[in-house]
Amino acid sequence: MSRLVGNAVVAQSGGPTAVINASAAGVIQAALASGDIPHVFGAHNGILGVVEEQLFDLGQEDAAAIEGLRRTPSAALGSCRYKLKSLKDSRADYERILEVFRAHNVRYFFYIGGNDSMDTADKLGILAGETGYELRVMGIPKTIDNDLVETDHCPGYGSVVKYLAVTVMEAGRDTEALYTADTATVLETMGRNTGWIAAGTGLAQRTAEDAPHLIYVPEVPFSVEGFVADCQAVLQRLGRLFIVAAEGLTDEKGEYITTDTGAFATDAFGHRQLGGVAEFLKAIVEEKVGVKCRWNKLGTCQRNAMHFASKRDSDEAYLVGEVAVQQALQGRTGKMVTLVRESDNPYTITTGLADLAVVANGEKPLPREYMNDAGTHITERMRRYAQPLIGGEVPLEMGADGLPTYVRLKRRFIEPKTGRRSAG
Amino acid sequence: MSRLVGNAVVAQSGGPTAVINASAAGVIQAALASGDIPHVFGAHNGILGVVEEQLFDLGQEDAAAIEGLRRTPSAALGSCRYKLKSLKDSRADYERILEVFRAHNVRYFFYIGGNDSMDTADKLGILAGETGYELRVMGIPKTIDNDLVETDHCPGYGSVVKYLAVTVMEAGRDTEALYTADTATVLETMGRNTGWIAAGTGLAQRTAEDAPHLIYVPEVPFSVEGFVADCQAVLQRLGRLFIVAAEGLTDEKGEYITTDTGAFATDAFGHRQLGGVAEFLKAIVEEKVGVKCRWNKLGTCQRNAMHFASKRDSDEAYLVGEVAVQQALQGRTGKMVTLVRESDNPYTITTGLADLAVVANGEKPLPREYMNDAGTHITERMRRYAQPLIGGEVPLEMGADGLPTYVRLKRRFIEPKTGRRSAG
Repeated sequence: MSRLVGNAVVAQSGGPTAVINASAAGVIQAALASGDIPHVFGAHNGILGVVEEQLFDLGQEDAAAIEGLRRTPSAALGSCRYKLKSLKDSRADYERILEVFRAHNVRYFFYIGGNDSMDTADKLGILAGETGYELRVMGIPKTIDNDLVETDHCPGYGSVVKYLAVTVMEAGRDTEALYTADTATVLETMGRNTGWIAAGTGLAQRTAEDAPHLIYVPEVPFSVEGFVADCQAVLQRLGRLFIVAAEGLTDEKGEYITTDTGAFATDAFGHRQLGGVAEFLKAIVEEKVGVKCRWNKLGTCQRNAMHFASKRDSDEAYLVGEVAVQQALQGRTGKMVTLVRESDNPYTITTGLADLAVVANGEKPLPREYMNDAGTHITERMRRYAQPLIGGEVPLEMGADGLPTYVRLKRRFIEPKTGRRSAG
Repeated sequence: MSRLVGNAVVAQSGGPTAVINASAAGVIQAALASGDIPHVFGAHNGILGVVEEQLFDLGQEDAAAIEGLRRTPSAALGSCRYKLKSLKDSRADYERILEVFRAHNVRYFFYIGGNDSMDTADKLGILAGETGYELRVMGIPKTIDNDLVETDHCPGYGSVVKYLAVTVMEAGRDTEALYTADTATVLETMGRNTGWIAAGTGLAQRTAEDAPHLIYVPEVPFSVEGFVADCQAVLQRLGRLFIVAAEGLTDEKGEYITTDTGAFATDAFGHRQLGGVAEFLKAIVEEKVGVKCRWNKLGTCQRNAMHFASKRDSDEAYLVGEVAVQQALQGRTGKMVTLVRESDNPYTITTGLADLAVVANGEKPLPREYMNDAGTHITERMRRYAQPLIGGEVPLEMGADGLPTYVRLKRRFIEPKTGRRSAG
């Protein structure tokens, strides 16, 4: 281990979560306490903030505000969907980032995000090495999608599952009370390519009466005929029906069963923006099953629901941030901190490290055996996996007005030193 | 006051709320403790359960389950949208109900619902009087829509506002973090004819930075041109935009700006089922304002969100149930219990009584002065009105699995005595 004294940049990327700020708090508190990192800079809006030299000094925030990040949802540093491509195609951006890092003696870079962010961090570390600039780059996993490889699960996932599970319990009781009028309900969850989130709502079903009665995930090809038969079977048994469906359902050919036709139908990464699965299934239930169907789409509400977030998830999010700093101080670079499950019950975890490049290029689908043979509900194996992740509630600080107090950072921007605002 | 000894029926009607079961608990506990009411029957699925003689004995439920109703969302007795018309048009139904009441010596009827339910209860009381059957009929207000006349507010409203306000705070932070990619967000709330619910989310805005930045209600005619200008002004100021819109927005001619085209586009009452306002506004934001827009539609999740329900709302819901029983025991009939505000700060209320017929035929719009001149956000007057209603959180009983335990009644159905199942 060689000691490296220099400043740090911490950045958040991609879709926010209820606990991404807990990871930032872990990084900031560990870095400020280290003795080797004089300044911890926040990048405003992820890697964009580095490219644009929009950095703020987190050491100038109130300590209470940093601690308050642990009960504040979304990305307090600002996030982005700015995509860097290969070193060849985005070389100007990567060089620009190193230019900014050099200007501010940044020797540590902590990037909290999903696989696109791990890719960016990885390539940045490679270029730094090539150019002889000593930089330690660590990735910190974050995604409600839970689709990163190498880690047992991703911070953010437990909280979205806890919130959606209670929501399904509650909306399920609505369908149960009003089945003579509104006989069926569809709830659409996030999950573009994987069914982890939708499957997680299966925890809401403690008895066969409970919602959800049917769960559809992208890993199981969707057929209208199968769906209609599934619905009919549940209606026969219970006289009501509550369905959870991931936004990214695909048919036997692997095509999305519905796509958004709006003016911004693809995001900056070229991902197609999905939506409309709930309305699509509602139409099938009404037209082909023949009962009235309501539909709910929680959208961005689900990934920021701090008011019912998982304490365990939040604590783990903090932990991976803290460990990233500790590992970097010990000389590690080019790694993402992982969560390694030792046991389901009692639930115990430790942390590990994975190569950024491996995480960047992988995607972890929901294992087929986590769904039943019909592909319409979760198995006991999925229950054992997901249940420990939703334990406890993050304590809120409530205002006198009956709503939580979430912090907002002061963001004391530092003086730019490079004289320009972008790459090239 | 004349003493009347006989059984009671309690029923729940219309869309469930987080606290309609608290009202049921208030009725059941007060009635069972009264000494004058030997049996308290629950009607399975509102008035339908009476017509079909589907009654269960609430005295046979565990006392803990009855108490547990206070932390259980939705309608535990079952609800319905079964609409009785005038005494002339629905006479067979009304006579059938009295037949069932006579068969089980039911002398007290407590109906928890909105104005349609108050209408049913009122007419039932009138027919009982005409036929010389001594029956005391009391209405208990319930609606998230908050549109009943004569009462300061309706149980159920405070809880939906508290939940939606925290949700707007949280999803608003998402837009704030990711504005460089997802610049705008629309959240659609319930509210077919009135803007109480949408306006309530204004409480989430503590500073001008906070969501929601724009609120649209049915009481203010919607114009696309005005909306585009409103959006542009917010974007100019903040670079991001969070919009709340009620589902029942109408244009200058009073026409809904969007309607659901599904197979079940009207409900049993002939109300058009709305939906799609969020998608409609999203399309305008993308096409005419020119920024990417996300949208969220919480649907039935919002009215059952016990996991962040208002303690004050729940306590008041219990109170109106309890007072309905006390008033009926004292000889009152044909009345709905109201909440009468004595002061905003400190918030104090008492209860009153209103004629069922008056409540049945009224609808209370959001006063225009509760919205600003532009009709795009709430005023201080609205804030003073709504803020006290969201105080405190209903304590949950959490299971070992990280989710709340909501009760389900055993429903010990009593033996039918009339030998048939419906009217006529």
